[in-house]
Amino acid sequence: MKYISLLGATGSIGTQTLDVIRRNPEEYRLAAFSAGKNMELTRKIIDEFKPELVSVSDKDDCFALKSEFSSSTSFYHGEEGLVETAVYHKSDILVNAVLGSVGLFPTLQAIKEKKIIAIANKETLVTAGHLVMEAAKENGVLLLPVDSEHSAIFQALQGEKEKNIEKLILTASGGSFRDRTRDELQGVTVKDALNHPNWSMGAKITIDSATMMNKGLEVIEAHWLFQMPYDRIDVLLHRESIIHSMVEFHDSSIIAQLGTPDMRVPIQYALTYPDRLPFPGASRLNLAEIGKLHFEKMDMDRFYCLKLAYQAGIVGGTTPTVLNAANEEAVEAFLKGKISFLEIEEYIERALNRHQKIDQPDLETIREVDKETRSYIHELLS
Amino acid sequence: MKYISLLGATGSIGTQTLDVIRRNPEEYRLAAFSAGKNMELTRKIIDEFKPELVSVSDKDDCFALKSEFSSSTSFYHGEEGLVETAVYHKSDILVNAVLGSVGLFPTLQAIKEKKIIAIANKETLVTAGHLVMEAAKENGVLLLPVDSEHSAIFQALQGEKEKNIEKLILTASGGSFRDRTRDELQGVTVKDALNHPNWSMGAKITIDSATMMNKGLEVIEAHWLFQMPYDRIDVLLHRESIIHSMVEFHDSSIIAQLGTPDMRVPIQYALTYPDRLPFPGASRLNLAEIGKLHFEKMDMDRFYCLKLAYQAGIVGGTTPTVLNAANEEAVEAFLKGKISFLEIEEYIERALNRHQKIDQPDLETIREVDKETRSYIHELLS
Repeated sequence: MKYISLLGATGSIGTQTLDVIRRNPEEYRLAAFSAGKNMELTRKIIDEFKPELVSVSDKDDCFALKSEFSSSTSFYHGEEGLVETAVYHKSDILVNAVLGSVGLFPTLQAIKEKKIIAIANKETLVTAGHLVMEAAKENGVLLLPVDSEHSAIFQALQGEKEKNIEKLILTASGGSFRDRTRDELQGVTVKDALNHPNWSMGAKITIDSATMMNKGLEVIEAHWLFQMPYDRIDVLLHRESIIHSMVEFHDSSIIAQLGTPDMRVPIQYALTYPDRLPFPGASRLNLAEIGKLHFEKMDMDRFYCLKLAYQAGIVGGTTPTVLNAANEEAVEAFLKGKISFLEIEEYIERALNRHQKIDQPDLETIREVDKETRSYIHELLS
Repeated sequence: MKYISLLGATGSIGTQTLDVIRRNPEEYRLAAFSAGKNMELTRKIIDEFKPELVSVSDKDDCFALKSEFSSSTSFYHGEEGLVETAVYHKSDILVNAVLGSVGLFPTLQAIKEKKIIAIANKETLVTAGHLVMEAAKENGVLLLPVDSEHSAIFQALQGEKEKNIEKLILTASGGSFRDRTRDELQGVTVKDALNHPNWSMGAKITIDSATMMNKGLEVIEAHWLFQMPYDRIDVLLHRESIIHSMVEFHDSSIIAQLGTPDMRVPIQYALTYPDRLPFPGASRLNLAEIGKLHFEKMDMDRFYCLKLAYQAGIVGGTTPTVLNAANEEAVEAFLKGKISFLEIEEYIERALNRHQKIDQPDLETIREVDKETRSYIHELLS
């Protein structure tokens, strides 16, 4: 029996992680989880999984839950609550499925406590990859990717040697606007953008898919997770999202991982690694039925956010932090109807252009740059 | 430095194996090889690689070479020569690239001498899989597949556990007649049949690809190599031969190996396993350029030889030996213009129908059944 701490239980990855735990009651137990403000779902999760520790965003919600539920569950809130969830003493694995850079500090704390980290929160690696990888190495901690692309690469690398890797090939569905030209992106609505062709995901990541920033963040994540220089990470447009990603070795052989788009499969793999467990309900890939898989070169000018992400990754230091913070704020502004779709990349680029990179930033510096970037975007918005 | 014995040096796999050795002179040395009747190429190989042992089919050729070349090379001929090549004391690896069931006995002898076996000769496993696997297990010998499909599966299985396999998916290009109906197969010529769309291979295997018997033999080979029941081995029509084969695991995840069609890549992998070496000249797969990969359900009635192979495999015992021997003779008869393309399957089916299966046959029984089947086909032909 493995005990699990889950950050971001009410989000898309969170609820799918709960489903994996639910399907394998002999193997996994939800020991602790954090949620945001969705109290209805939080209550349901407590009822079903009876965790020992729960953390929510708001103080008031925390007190309400405390009075409502039995004393066998401890309740926390805010940033402290996230850390308490992440480092809960009984947990073997931390599944980090929160949104945005808020997942960074709790993850670093969990690494210090030598928890296995299943990481779905790409912003943690984007904004502070060097700190996370360094801490993981120091503490002998395993970082397991949950993103379908990184899980695919991780699976393709099993039994292989890093020295033999030629390059990583991340596939990209192209998002909701893949068939539109840049001109046709003028005036697209939030509703249009939220209509992802393959994956059912949260709002922020769906917008990130439409701008291709999601793939950009994944490139930076892959750089850190697999210690691969940027010129050996390719992105390939593959509209069906069937090949989740690939590794090319220096003998020209390519290993790929395929499947129907179902996030529960890579989530379960992260929990069962290095083993696999059956997944009775999973829809099986039937390539004969699908008939064709399509591949196209990725156009960096069309998907300008991807270009920005590569550039920010290559510059390094605090630049990816700026990229990520500006993106988070710009996407939120777009979702709230404050800016247009094409202004997302414009705001990010403006934030990047004014930033003076700091090399090898520590956690404090990263937090300051993150905060400062968000203030700058807010200024632009006001 | 690894020393290599190569059975079938002048054939398609043989010459490509020599090219791999040629490219890696620091890693591999050709210690011994066997050839058939192509004396021109045999002489070239001796000149270039200066092996210590050479075997050819004919006694006279053997004596001619002996008088021609220096005394530092030993010369053998016939069946004895094949065995001498296979068990040559300095060799670490035997690459079995001969054609047909003649490869069986030397392979069994090499296994007893604890050589690593790189097996491109599928008839060895088809006709006596149980004996080969048993001997390999007893002697702790590694069997490395060279066929692109089995190499793909073998690569996909690295770092994975056998218990987690759901099924093996062998891909098939469809061969030279994939776009013809059965009616359109009436009266096709040898020249038509030898025109394979993707792979440049020997004549026998190219005809086997056109009849789909090649895939049938591969299914039986996969059954033995990976100890997989027949109902968990699928065949998928994939005309580009880019995905070389796949493994589906019980969590629904699929691992595939991809590449341009170049047999030197799986040959090199068998030699370098568990490592990989760079392959500077290999043409790299560019999926964006290819654009589309196609998949179709395999029609067992259209490709009747595949159906016969599955049936023979499931019946087991001496039945696959009959399948293989009848196929070898029928294909030869077709290549010589003695029978039509569709008569190949007819002759095989007739041989299968009259055979009384013997379970768990020993080597002697297999040889008798093999011989007896060939005589029967010759009778039909006369």
